[in-house]
Amino acid sequence: MGRHRAAIVGAGHTRFGALEAGPRSLLRSAVDGALGSVDRGVDRAPIREAFLATLGFGGWQIGNASAVLGEESGGAGVPTTRIENACASGGFALRAGVRAVHDAADGLVLVAGVEKMTDLTSPRRRYWLGVSGDTEWERLAGLTFAGVYGLIASAYAARHSTAREAMAEVARKNHENGTRNPNAHFRKRIARADVLAAPRVADPLGLYDCCPVSDGAAAVLLAPADRAREYTDTPVYVEAVGAASDRLAVQERPELARFPATERAAAEAFRDGDLRREEIGFLEVHDCFTIAELLALEDLGFAPPGGACDLTLSGATSPGGRLPVNPDGGLKAKGHPIGATGVSQAYEIFLQLRAAAGDRQLPGVETALAHNVGGAGATATVSLFRRG
Amino acid sequence: MGRHRAAIVGAGHTRFGALEAGPRSLLRSAVDGALGSVDRGVDRAPIREAFLATLGFGGWQIGNASAVLGEESGGAGVPTTRIENACASGGFALRAGVRAVHDAADGLVLVAGVEKMTDLTSPRRRYWLGVSGDTEWERLAGLTFAGVYGLIASAYAARHSTAREAMAEVARKNHENGTRNPNAHFRKRIARADVLAAPRVADPLGLYDCCPVSDGAAAVLLAPADRAREYTDTPVYVEAVGAASDRLAVQERPELARFPATERAAAEAFRDGDLRREEIGFLEVHDCFTIAELLALEDLGFAPPGGACDLTLSGATSPGGRLPVNPDGGLKAKGHPIGATGVSQAYEIFLQLRAAAGDRQLPGVETALAHNVGGAGATATVSLFRRG
Repeated sequence: MGRHRAAIVGAGHTRFGALEAGPRSLLRSAVDGALGSVDRGVDRAPIREAFLATLGFGGWQIGNASAVLGEESGGAGVPTTRIENACASGGFALRAGVRAVHDAADGLVLVAGVEKMTDLTSPRRRYWLGVSGDTEWERLAGLTFAGVYGLIASAYAARHSTAREAMAEVARKNHENGTRNPNAHFRKRIARADVLAAPRVADPLGLYDCCPVSDGAAAVLLAPADRAREYTDTPVYVEAVGAASDRLAVQERPELARFPATERAAAEAFRDGDLRREEIGFLEVHDCFTIAELLALEDLGFAPPGGACDLTLSGATSPGGRLPVNPDGGLKAKGHPIGATGVSQAYEIFLQLRAAAGDRQLPGVETALAHNVGGAGATATVSLFRRG
Repeated sequence: MGRHRAAIVGAGHTRFGALEAGPRSLLRSAVDGALGSVDRGVDRAPIREAFLATLGFGGWQIGNASAVLGEESGGAGVPTTRIENACASGGFALRAGVRAVHDAADGLVLVAGVEKMTDLTSPRRRYWLGVSGDTEWERLAGLTFAGVYGLIASAYAARHSTAREAMAEVARKNHENGTRNPNAHFRKRIARADVLAAPRVADPLGLYDCCPVSDGAAAVLLAPADRAREYTDTPVYVEAVGAASDRLAVQERPELARFPATERAAAEAFRDGDLRREEIGFLEVHDCFTIAELLALEDLGFAPPGGACDLTLSGATSPGGRLPVNPDGGLKAKGHPIGATGVSQAYEIFLQLRAAAGDRQLPGVETALAHNVGGAGATATVSLFRRG
């Protein structure tokens, strides 16, 4: 869906990690950060509508939680909607927010995501993550979420001999990137050898192939595209937000190591947005497991099947390469507070395209793509952005 | 939000009640019913996007459940989004669906709601309902959902002497209406005296003041307003869907017996829709408890504070009266499968405005209003409809 309807004019982000703060104050910090980042005009432009992306909030307010976002965004009262599409909640909330801007013509639309996961006991966490996959045929049969991705990685590695090494490089690169992101959960360098030697989680995936369980929140403020310059000289336009779904259970899909939902969401985005793949400056992709970054590069059309291994091992996806991927550390190192992730990707893109990303600034990027996946590819969004 | 963007061109509905079917097959029945109800052109107009309203699906697939709707609506693949705003999920899903129609110009947008509640054990059910109110300050302090409405009813009754009798009349009328709705959970007449003599649930509310715990699903198909006649000669236009939120905890609001979210949602709907209150043919309001129907009449602006008692006791809200309310039996008698309720209201309106409501058809209605509340007024939608 469609061209140049909305622009991001502000964005906020908490640290990701095991945090003291609860989901309510995390939300407030992200929203305050977003409001504070708007260059001008925000006093006369109140928030007119708000969308909350969350899988389970903090485990306690799992119903009607969007009203909390209303409370924490400067006065209850505006329409608030909770969007829940598992790990893709943020991307779908962005899609909803973009559609809402024209009903908020004289104000702003808030899109925020939050999760508070580290308070949950380990079985509840597994339950939470498990429900993002198919419950009837996967979770209740004993398949964990890491297990699904382990199966996918096995299928992929059986066909592509450098896959294991490329997955290790994804982890190394994203950890390296995380060291330059003050909000990242992990800011620790690791070597490929560390990844390969780590304890197994779900073979062939080891500890360093998996994103952490994180708390955190992120928020962006959207204005109608034609009014964006009332708020800033450097808006970031949302060219398109493509979205798609797939069968929930991976066993019902023809192939394991391919997410047709990503392909379809990308097709919609490139159909509706005024950008070609060759023009994309950098990518934020959904690397919940290292294998997922490889799949993303292929499903998004930036590499042929198996080609993501060479692309990654060649250094092309590093910050100095020709197609940087996850300069903020990705889910792998930045962390993955589920509902916040898709919004956090938009935050990173907002910073990078305004040349405000500090130590991790990519030189001269003017466009970007964000890719957000729910479960093991049952829902997905692909969004395109361009500097104003 | 917005005038004449979308029209309902098809609608489906399962029975509401304690059903054998699971949430997946309930959804399928409602969607098949909706597709089957479209007069023409549905073969060449596939569903382009789908929205699922649900609080907890069936208790098992609580994450990423919208992908199931994709599967059950004729082929996985389309963008699917779960909207969760507690009991107002359906109303907010309709709002999202209306906004999506222009991205589906050559096809249809599906809005479906479902809940499967009767399988849940009683504590899980209480938990589910409790999370729709405030968890930190209400649920964990021991206040049940019926308890919140009991407090509201007490506050209201303390000011309005005929309140108790009027609540009993709401129950009597809605049960009477339910006898004419083949999909209703309760199809049994009751007298006001039965309501007054029933065991207390949360004083002053008795058993017959409370809606039942129900299973069920409902679905509507939306087309862009300007293409609605490709599908039917009798579309029902969505004039506007207003929405609002409020503080989650009732203790943080200035008054108990008033829902400002309803007032604000109505203000938006009447601002954006091309209809005045005097023109509304009938109402579908959110009567989760009998007191809620009285509040709705006042908050929506159809009666002054306290005036809902006289309006109700005068018979004006009965099918033969000047402002019929809940001709399908309402949540009270039709049942309240949470995510399905807001969509079910649109289904009833689709039938009534096309003069297809059978035994319960209201004579000559051309316009209607639907009112959907999340929790005890923390979120609300008000939608306006007009016969094409």
